[in-house]
Amino acid sequence: MARYYLGFDVGGSKTRARLIDAGGTVIGTGEAGPGNTRMGIDRVKQVLLEAGRHSITAAGISDSEIGEIAMGAGIAGLSREGARNALENEDFPYAATIFATDGMIANLGAHGGQDGAILIIGTGSSAHVLHEGKSFTIGGYGFPISDEGSGAALGLSAMRHALRALDGRTKPTPLSSAITARFSHETPRAIAWMDEARPADYASFAPLVMDFAEADDEIARSIVEDAARHIERFIETIFERGAPRCALAGGLAPRMEPWLKARTVARLVPAQGDPVDGALYLAGYRPQR
Amino acid sequence: MARYYLGFDVGGSKTRARLIDAGGTVIGTGEAGPGNTRMGIDRVKQVLLEAGRHSITAAGISDSEIGEIAMGAGIAGLSREGARNALENEDFPYAATIFATDGMIANLGAHGGQDGAILIIGTGSSAHVLHEGKSFTIGGYGFPISDEGSGAALGLSAMRHALRALDGRTKPTPLSSAITARFSHETPRAIAWMDEARPADYASFAPLVMDFAEADDEIARSIVEDAARHIERFIETIFERGAPRCALAGGLAPRMEPWLKARTVARLVPAQGDPVDGALYLAGYRPQR
Repeated sequence: MARYYLGFDVGGSKTRARLIDAGGTVIGTGEAGPGNTRMGIDRVKQVLLEAGRHSITAAGISDSEIGEIAMGAGIAGLSREGARNALENEDFPYAATIFATDGMIANLGAHGGQDGAILIIGTGSSAHVLHEGKSFTIGGYGFPISDEGSGAALGLSAMRHALRALDGRTKPTPLSSAITARFSHETPRAIAWMDEARPADYASFAPLVMDFAEADDEIARSIVEDAARHIERFIETIFERGAPRCALAGGLAPRMEPWLKARTVARLVPAQGDPVDGALYLAGYRPQR
Repeated sequence: MARYYLGFDVGGSKTRARLIDAGGTVIGTGEAGPGNTRMGIDRVKQVLLEAGRHSITAAGISDSEIGEIAMGAGIAGLSREGARNALENEDFPYAATIFATDGMIANLGAHGGQDGAILIIGTGSSAHVLHEGKSFTIGGYGFPISDEGSGAALGLSAMRHALRALDGRTKPTPLSSAITARFSHETPRAIAWMDEARPADYASFAPLVMDFAEADDEIARSIVEDAARHIERFIETIFERGAPRCALAGGLAPRMEPWLKARTVARLVPAQGDPVDGALYLAGYRPQR
């Protein structure tokens, strides 16, 4: 058994690290910038070392004790071809290192290291299932082909509707007016925006779409109801494929949950912990119960 | 009046030119590679000069007569900011030059230079309306936000369905199996394809979707019926906004037409000519009736 456990969540917006002792007490935390295998393995290594160093410094652990740390890290984009191998060939100063996808640590964190599933609804949407030693994902294949029910999908639908309202193919609604107002109601400006827009840019419209849906805007409602149907189908598939329990996570989850059927919500469990908790389970930490 | 007219269709797949005399007789044709203002003004000028030279050589016109040619060109992407100005500042050896969008020349060609509208259904979808001295477009704002009912939209819907069939969110159908077969039924291969896919790549699945819809594949039918609803709405909007007549064009139009309501099809007229004919009208050619 290691003397210390160090967990990392290396994600597209930032890197978080947490260092605990064998009893589970948090003794240090650290942060660094975003990391994703798409940014290169060097970048991932750099943010791991940086956030790790912050945690170790905060904990006041001496250099001679670093070799008693077991490290677990969830990395965005780890399923990219060759990424896991490349990371495993890098040198780290710890006693042990183990890498998993960001979905895996989110799932482990949500269910205290036990079997279960997590459906993440944020900029994108994807599910991770861990059951009887097997793990797999559902969805999350990338925008625009996938990520049904996500913030990016809501934003794309809203932009489509807004442009059709401008050219007369559909009636303007308060939602479409709020969106086209951001482009001075001019189609060429909206097109120029789209030329550069990434999924997170589309997702920036999601809170607006939710606001208008809650205020009974007809089109906003239909967009959110369509997204909710996709989320329902995600959850049904998660259970059909054997998961014993399912939790929701991600920035859009709290706002989407009221739009799901009560019978669906009744099947969900709250997440017990966050992805960094999952990374600590990955590293081998087990709470004394 | 010019002695000769030279029309160009400068598009994303190739450039076509046609040279006629004042009586309308074709005396030379030429081709060159693709051109779009996105590829740069130099590129557009280059394909115009190349296709023009081929036409002039084929016609056997002497250098001293080139100054008697009136030239009209439809250019993909001309509505891009600054593009028209940049082109108008270039030197060409003709008596007169006039530039318009690819939509404008397609429309002029379809209605013999008269008022009307054209709805182009190919890789993308967009309408061009010319009515009482005003011209405007509907749709065609770019993929994935726009181009409803287009080949790219059919392909995107089919890929979404195919990926959901692989992960268990929806039932496989012959269509989804035919699509996933192209990726050895492996999701990572489909994702890798999508990372690089352009609208024309999505549109390459459109004939397959139409084939399966015609063979009553349930999902293919729902995809095509949804596209047909968008096309219907395009056509209704074209008439609501004042166009006296409307023609369909583009590679997908002949296959989509049977899926439209008979009452919609009854409102359509066949295109009288092609975009190069429209470019000749743009150059000032008028047939003697």
